[in-house]
Amino acid sequence: MTVSVLNGVHDVTTEQRPVPVPGPGEVLVRVLAVGTCGSDVHYYEHGRIGDFVVQRPLVLGHEPSGVVVANGPGATLHEPGTRVSLEPGVPCSRCAQCRRGRYNLCPDMRFFGTPPIDGAFCEYVVLREEFVYPVPDALSDEAAGLLEPLSVGVWACRKARVGPGSRVLVTGAGPIGLVAAQTARAFGATEVVVTDVNAKRLRLAAELGATATVDVGTTSLADSGFEPDVLLECSGVPSATGEAVRRVGRAGRVVLIGMGGDEIPLPLAHVQGFELEVTGTFRYANTWPDAIALAASREVDLDRLVTHRFGLGEVEQALTVSGRDDSVIKAVVLPDA
Amino acid sequence: MTVSVLNGVHDVTTEQRPVPVPGPGEVLVRVLAVGTCGSDVHYYEHGRIGDFVVQRPLVLGHEPSGVVVANGPGATLHEPGTRVSLEPGVPCSRCAQCRRGRYNLCPDMRFFGTPPIDGAFCEYVVLREEFVYPVPDALSDEAAGLLEPLSVGVWACRKARVGPGSRVLVTGAGPIGLVAAQTARAFGATEVVVTDVNAKRLRLAAELGATATVDVGTTSLADSGFEPDVLLECSGVPSATGEAVRRVGRAGRVVLIGMGGDEIPLPLAHVQGFELEVTGTFRYANTWPDAIALAASREVDLDRLVTHRFGLGEVEQALTVSGRDDSVIKAVVLPDA
Amino acid sequence: MTVSVLNGVHDVTTEQRPVPVPGPGEVLVRVLAVGTCGSDVHYYEHGRIGDFVVQRPLVLGHEPSGVVVANGPGATLHEPGTRVSLEPGVPCSRCAQCRRGRYNLCPDMRFFGTPPIDGAFCEYVVLREEFVYPVPDALSDEAAGLLEPLSVGVWACRKARVGPGSRVLVTGAGPIGLVAAQTARAFGATEVVVTDVNAKRLRLAAELGATATVDVGTTSLADSGFEPDVLLECSGVPSATGEAVRRVGRAGRVVLIGMGGDEIPLPLAHVQGFELEVTGTFRYANTWPDAIALAASREVDLDRLVTHRFGLGEVEQALTVSGRDDSVIKAVVLPDA
Amino acid sequence: MTVSVLNGVHDVTTEQRPVPVPGPGEVLVRVLAVGTCGSDVHYYEHGRIGDFVVQRPLVLGHEPSGVVVANGPGATLHEPGTRVSLEPGVPCSRCAQCRRGRYNLCPDMRFFGTPPIDGAFCEYVVLREEFVYPVPDALSDEAAGLLEPLSVGVWACRKARVGPGSRVLVTGAGPIGLVAAQTARAFGATEVVVTDVNAKRLRLAAELGATATVDVGTTSLADSGFEPDVLLECSGVPSATGEAVRRVGRAGRVVLIGMGGDEIPLPLAHVQGFELEVTGTFRYANTWPDAIALAASREVDLDRLVTHRFGLGEVEQALTVSGRDDSVIKAVVLPDA
Repeated sequence: MTVSVLNGVHDVTTEQRPVPVPGPGEVLVRVLAVGTCGSDVHYYEHGRIGDFVVQRPLVLGHEPSGVVVANGPGATLHEPGTRVSLEPGVPCSRCAQCRRGRYNLCPDMRFFGTPPIDGAFCEYVVLREEFVYPVPDALSDEAAGLLEPLSVGVWACRKARVGPGSRVLVTGAGPIGLVAAQTARAFGATEVVVTDVNAKRLRLAAELGATATVDVGTTSLADSGFEPDVLLECSGVPSATGEAVRRVGRAGRVVLIGMGGDEIPLPLAHVQGFELEVTGTFRYANTWPDAIALAASREVDLDRLVTHRFGLGEVEQALTVSGRDDSVIKAVVLPDA
Repeated sequence: MTVSVLNGVHDVTTEQRPVPVPGPGEVLVRVLAVGTCGSDVHYYEHGRIGDFVVQRPLVLGHEPSGVVVANGPGATLHEPGTRVSLEPGVPCSRCAQCRRGRYNLCPDMRFFGTPPIDGAFCEYVVLREEFVYPVPDALSDEAAGLLEPLSVGVWACRKARVGPGSRVLVTGAGPIGLVAAQTARAFGATEVVVTDVNAKRLRLAAELGATATVDVGTTSLADSGFEPDVLLECSGVPSATGEAVRRVGRAGRVVLIGMGGDEIPLPLAHVQGFELEVTGTFRYANTWPDAIALAASREVDLDRLVTHRFGLGEVEQALTVSGRDDSVIKAVVLPDA
Repeated sequence: MTVSVLNGVHDVTTEQRPVPVPGPGEVLVRVLAVGTCGSDVHYYEHGRIGDFVVQRPLVLGHEPSGVVVANGPGATLHEPGTRVSLEPGVPCSRCAQCRRGRYNLCPDMRFFGTPPIDGAFCEYVVLREEFVYPVPDALSDEAAGLLEPLSVGVWACRKARVGPGSRVLVTGAGPIGLVAAQTARAFGATEVVVTDVNAKRLRLAAELGATATVDVGTTSLADSGFEPDVLLECSGVPSATGEAVRRVGRAGRVVLIGMGGDEIPLPLAHVQGFELEVTGTFRYANTWPDAIALAASREVDLDRLVTHRFGLGEVEQALTVSGRDDSVIKAVVLPDA
Repeated sequence: MTVSVLNGVHDVTTEQRPVPVPGPGEVLVRVLAVGTCGSDVHYYEHGRIGDFVVQRPLVLGHEPSGVVVANGPGATLHEPGTRVSLEPGVPCSRCAQCRRGRYNLCPDMRFFGTPPIDGAFCEYVVLREEFVYPVPDALSDEAAGLLEPLSVGVWACRKARVGPGSRVLVTGAGPIGLVAAQTARAFGATEVVVTDVNAKRLRLAAELGATATVDVGTTSLADSGFEPDVLLECSGVPSATGEAVRRVGRAGRVVLIGMGGDEIPLPLAHVQGFELEVTGTFRYANTWPDAIALAASREVDLDRLVTHRFGLGEVEQALTVSGRDDSVIKAVVLPDA
């Protein structure tokens, strides 16, 4: 099969590899569509994310959909031919974190496209069957892949206890911010205000359900007068984060989703005086069923996020434009194309 | 009656004022003992804490015990002669925060010794009867006053979900750290490690139940190898806080109790990668019954914290030594002395 | 003003009384619309509900909307002329329950139309200002009154932790069941199955958003194969309750809303083996803001529930048909009519 | 090795079987002590518990301690020679329940001594290594086995949110009631009242830390005037359960631990009016670390529960006296004896 490989910084090639063989409890999936994520771009541009370093050729891509081709020994959940979305990480299932249901915190997680585990920018992948989810016809192939970023939004909204009546501030209108804003609406939030410095992205946020937008390049967030219950921080800009936290009302929740720098300034007196709860998210756990429901009912529109499409031979281009072109929201790699 | 008044920075005098008259639903209490708190010292040294500025003469002191002298109209809960502890803040009872049970976040809270509300460094105070709690004989007058800082510890341990098996790091062995460490033990924590740079305070921490201590003046916290579930930050030192947060294990909780500076550096990648929950405390709500139980059963020893005693005419001395003399853990003002 | 009075079982008359005068912190409200509730009917038919006995003439009605006429001393929240919904119970604000935010459990609650507190089947009522809520133009007068039963649904869905992806069984398609089903949908439930023995009510449930209905007069619930996460029991039929609880899946939640009999049979082995959480609701707390948001956005349609309208002189007729005529979903009393 | 086998109702024999061979990730453990549980007795007396039927010869016993003898392929957690306690159920690790951390609700759980899975009344057992826990010297072999019933207490106290200040009613002073009462104290409960009809057991409860006891054979629980926050129902007597639930105060929690009959009468009006939360427990999840801590610190005394000891050839006698002799609290089987 054809595989797109990251050999090092700014060095992506395609090569031929044998189609993988599903082991016990695994299924073989032919890949239909794979979203490109900021972390893929980061590995491409820098060769590492924190302690995860690309030391050997690595296949990126962790937002895949596909179709089941074959079952490994003992795998029984999926009929070949079933169209599926893939949850792209397999935890150990045995450690204290896994046994407590927090498998996203498993120290032995094997996650697609994270060194040294290969991802889905290729024609076929294998995965444990319980991390493979059939999708209804209502979901396009591309949307089925984008259940992965939607899961990030679902997880963040759960952590933030977004519900009917919530007033939510989403900082950053990139792909995750646009998903988070929609998810917050789907969780019942009454007000969802999105900030960015890119007017086009803010317009898209409004079209996707944000009740208001603020261009923080020209308007101070403080001037907006908005006092949210919940901040979903998706910008990854440390100074913006500190400023946004100061806007959150009493007993509010802050979820730090955007990655950016090692430290952010936390406004201590405000966190104490208003007893804010601040947390960060690391991937997600047990989100696919809800993500499927939200996307299938169109409460969250994933197709609208797809702005660019590439073939397996064009992965480098997908990574390049995703990192450098503001008009790209989500570039999808289509192995069949 | 005699009242100790803060007129401004470094300016405390005593004066005579009429004994207050309890209004509807209030009781008149003769003060027996009042702990001196870091915030009292801060007003004395700086004339303000954040937005709270001493603009008129102010009576400090918000850790009082006393004996009920008289009931105002309609007050029926307490017999005159009852020895009591006072929860020193009265919320509005009507706002959204109060109605949700988070009365400590009431924007209209009237709190002893916080401008412009007078506190308890005097002979008599009035208070709404439902914030006055009878104490059992097992509690000394001084311990009954120190239920206030104990409430801070109870509130922090609740926020941190300390329970049987918890491993807790307490940074700072001042009065609040020493209370928090004991409270954590009383909540069932198996390990409680206390840090400070003062060897004498660390010895006291060990005597009061800390399972280990670390002198962070000479030993790096990282070297201790301790990975807590819970951090109760009581030092108020921003750099120490950042360092301590990095020690907390997966899904751990951080409660920021110590006040110090407007901002602290939050290690974003660690908070995200381990999905830490970070919050701050602002006073407490609904803690007195539990605090009474913990102190009466000797699971928390409050009397051991009292190192110095002063009369009403010596409040300035109490504030001075509390702020400047490391051998002072808790100085108590005894109006009768 | 004209007042409708319940003198005893099956004995309702109108009489003239002085317009009430708002006390400190209270507002005077002219009543626009008042829903008729099953408890009103029960007092009319039986003269009591449990320990609450009608011993003196009582004004029923606790689902009112109105318009602010005047403010009592110190009341400042509402301009005269504001159209409002009324939360019809005032707690003491001081007891342990109130201070913990569970004011619905206040033993000294003064609740409209519950002996000996008069309700809203009259032209004017007074109420503490913080229990009076302005409503947007999107809400009709009748819907503004029906925020009270909607609050029952909101409270139940919170207790049941209904959210995106939830599968909910609602037993009973009376007014509360129809509200609960809609509220569950608004909270994000993916499947909402409603049961009843009345085909017309089941049709209405389907029109209002139930994803399926089961006529339990002809079909066994067990045969439906539906295994909900959440049961919202609104029928008040003990045998049906026991049967419905047996359908709930692992770690499911059961909220008992319907009143019916002193005891119900709880399937112990099922509750244990699946670790179900079972609770009951008693009114609600802190629900109005969310109820307003849900009704104003049309996620919950309250107007569709109104099937009959009566004037103040026809309250007895409203109570009679509500209790005896299955075609009545919600009868509303319009004092101006 | 020698194995004690239940062939059918009232038919226990010993036989020789090969020592089991640990599979991948498993360890081989030589059994040191095994507690006898009410469910063992029930299988012996009735041949079934609900849907679990003894259809083939079955080894009972699920409260074992032992010493590690050998590791299977890939097992690395435990050195041979380590003294250990065994969590006696292995879930599938893959289903929705397991992935949410509720592995006790796994439908494919393989649990010791539950048909068709053999238990520990034998000389050697194998178990997945992550369900085997080293125990400190402070724990006797027998106490290490009794961490299993202690886990039931820990799980119940977590479900009930027992903490400092809690007032707890424990109905039934059998082995589970005596463990639950001690655990509640260890979780910080201020008052723990234990009921039974056996004066001797009530005396033991008092010795183990109950703050009061009620002989419900001679005294009505209602007369005691005790209004608990928490009911831990350990009697399994339906009528007693209904009565006890009526004693629970506002917002209280009820945990149904005792098994007895298919249905219990639930006092609906009380559950609703006081918004009680009622749940049942099915085994436990993630309890061993806390159970070890509580037993090692002597906050819970497990050794005091052991009243009788038997050899492997005397299992039938152990089961018989456990079921019929009130003086037996906990009979332990010692394979080496």
